[in-house]
Amino acid sequence: MVRFSVSLDRELLEGFDRMRARRGYQCRSEAIRDLIRDKLVETDSQDPMQEVVGSLTLLYHHDTRGLKDTLTELQHHRHGLVLSTLHLHLDHDHCLEILVLRGSSAGVRELADSLSSLKGVLHGRLTVTSTGRRLA
Amino acid sequence: MVRFSVSLDRELLEGFDRMRARRGYQCRSEAIRDLIRDKLVETDSQDPMQEVVGSLTLLYHHDTRGLKDTLTELQHHRHGLVLSTLHLHLDHDHCLEILVLRGSSAGVRELADSLSSLKGVLHGRLTVTSTGRRLA
Amino acid sequence: MVRFSVSLDRELLEGFDRMRARRGYQCRSEAIRDLIRDKLVETDSQDPMQEVVGSLTLLYHHDTRGLKDTLTELQHHRHGLVLSTLHLHLDHDHCLEILVLRGSSAGVRELADSLSSLKGVLHGRLTVTSTGRRLA
Amino acid sequence: MVRFSVSLDRELLEGFDRMRARRGYQCRSEAIRDLIRDKLVETDSQDPMQEVVGSLTLLYHHDTRGLKDTLTELQHHRHGLVLSTLHLHLDHDHCLEILVLRGSSAGVRELADSLSSLKGVLHGRLTVTSTGRRLA
Repeated sequence: MVRFSVSLDRELLEGFDRMRARRGYQCRSEAIRDLIRDKLVETDSQDPMQEVVGSLTLLYHHDTRGLKDTLTELQHHRHGLVLSTLHLHLDHDHCLEILVLRGSSAGVRELADSLSSLKGVLHGRLTVTSTGRRLA
Repeated sequence: MVRFSVSLDRELLEGFDRMRARRGYQCRSEAIRDLIRDKLVETDSQDPMQEVVGSLTLLYHHDTRGLKDTLTELQHHRHGLVLSTLHLHLDHDHCLEILVLRGSSAGVRELADSLSSLKGVLHGRLTVTSTGRRLA
Repeated sequence: MVRFSVSLDRELLEGFDRMRARRGYQCRSEAIRDLIRDKLVETDSQDPMQEVVGSLTLLYHHDTRGLKDTLTELQHHRHGLVLSTLHLHLDHDHCLEILVLRGSSAGVRELADSLSSLKGVLHGRLTVTSTGRRLA
Repeated sequence: MVRFSVSLDRELLEGFDRMRARRGYQCRSEAIRDLIRDKLVETDSQDPMQEVVGSLTLLYHHDTRGLKDTLTELQHHRHGLVLSTLHLHLDHDHCLEILVLRGSSAGVRELADSLSSLKGVLHGRLTVTSTGRRLA
């Protein structure tokens, strides 16, 4: 661990401390580290070649004809990108499927687009995070 | 199913068709439905009382002292909100945990904040989607 | 000015320093202050009663019948919210109008919605910033 | 103008109509066109070479030593990118400056970064829109 010191106006520090308390941070360093990591993840994920981990949330109608087969097929076709899949039955009609993806930022986005655009998929949203490297 | 017709400039239609093809949509109706659903999910999730489904992606160091206990404890404390948890070992040091949450938009966000701000959690990101109702 | 010190892993500091250099920050404190301010502005703007400053960017066809009159009328009707308006002729057909708004977060968003949704307005986007208070 | 028809579930149409009414749209076509344009602008602005129009909102302390000179100098240095600048005195200490930029997505972002990172600039946010072409 290394340290550096930050100088800032008292008023800004008070605002930071209030936000920190509301979000549950117990120490300033941890809150600052999270601000830095969040910015690094955001910046990294704009580079198409950067290796990222993504979680893709798909909401769909399980009884759409052919949908489950196509979902399975596309995942197998790009199986190198799919680490794991979690499936939940939300109610009689709706399924939630969460895919953990790992690969280049461009590859992950492309697979996410092709799954989200299938007929019967009501909502698809990709969250990009990091492989953990460089975030310490 | 009902239908309505949309009038638009030819140039805008061409731009839409190009984007649609690139993202893998086979018909216009499905692409339009997705634009509508995405906007509905975005609008709904701004209402703190609206019931939502969220997936929270947490990246953390598994060997941070006390972290796994605190993560488990907080999830049990709010077990009504946590539908399921998927856990992956990314490498020697890093874990990825994805929690599927369901509850009021405000409750889901508050739990996500309190988990993401724990020391040892390197990155936390909440994706909000819908319970499926109203998206048809 | 007050100071506090931040402890972090060497690898995370190196990532931060690279990002800082690329975005043109000359000292760490200034980059950290900007991360804090950005988060404060984001958090504040979610409170509907918080006073904010917004800039609304509108792109429109100047020859849409009645549009200029309606834009002017709506701005006059809510003149307490509109500090200033900048107008640019982008080409033969397209105008860019930037409105500086000041008021409650909810009021500013409502006016932005009602202007952006007018027929002939091709794109409307609201950026919310702060009145400067509390950002020091 | 051309037309195409959209088929969708009655429930989704009702959700769309409610959202449309709340945001002030008088007809469905206009609301759909705005959803399409918004997605096109978002997609286009991810291409570094795409020509975009941006509005950069800067909030700053006018009495930070050297700031006004540096802001002016940087804008002159990249004068080809800066179409116009609007300046407001928010209160005794704070200024708001809005720059209308036009150029490649990458060039506009780079200038926005270098201005936002200056010491004394409290908040900088870039909004990217289109030149109007292709949005009809």
